Amino acid sequence: MDVLEIGQKMVALNKEGKSLEALNTLFAEDAESIEATGDEQMPREMKGLDALRKKGEWFYTNHEVHGGDVKGPWPNGDRFAVVYSYDVTPKAGPMAGKRMQMEEVGLYTVAGGKITKEEFFYHMG
Amino acid sequence: MDVLEIGQKMVALNKEGKSLEALNTLFAEDAESIEATGDEQMPREMKGLDALRKKGEWFYTNHEVHGGDVKGPWPNGDRFAVVYSYDVTPKAGPMAGKRMQMEEVGLYTVAGGKITKEEFFYHMG
Repeated sequence: MDVLEIGQKMVALNKEGKSLEALNTLFAEDAESIEATGDEQMPREMKGLDALRKKGEWFYTNHEVHGGDVKGPWPNGDRFAVVYSYDVTPKAGPMAGKRMQMEEVGLYTVAGGKITKEEFFYHMG
Repeated sequence: MDVLEIGQKMVALNKEGKSLEALNTLFAEDAESIEATGDEQMPREMKGLDALRKKGEWFYTNHEVHGGDVKGPWPNGDRFAVVYSYDVTPKAGPMAGKRMQMEEVGLYTVAGGKITKEEFFYHMG
């Protein structure tokens, strides 16, 4: 699959809520994930599919998801961008119980037919 | 100005249609611009403020702009992402006279208080 095809598969799986399947089938074993921000519990930079799967589990364990959308993929060279929108209520932390809508850009780098890096761009008001 | 402040200024100027002022005030003299696609008339990669200004002129000369929006900025490290939506009618080329809506992600890299690289992610259906 080329960059556009991997992006299309990524968007299709995420639209169906199958983000774990996307990780398992489209990502390289040593893929990196780089958030805009991080803390001790959830570091800004993570590496390896196990860490990425745990991050996904953490998100779904700690958020009630009311809805969302995925737009894209929009490629450029060996990368593609996706725009996510979320409508969630955090179950823990300083925002617990406060329903919020947010958007972010996901930027994915492809090498050897797999996603090797995901980077997320967002701003916590 | 830090990355977020430069991004906020960039979004504010573009919302007012002042993209030329954004180039003149926020970009480094040798800034690079990398499109998703290009051709002989409009190469995929350009370098230098003069080339970037000419690209902007080309866009406004060759498109009737009905409307648009800018969302963001969403930072990550030394970069920030912006989502543009356009409602335009090309005046020339294969799409001349055909009104179209499109979206793209703009990714900007900041160094030394200036934007040194802009990269655009989109997909021409």
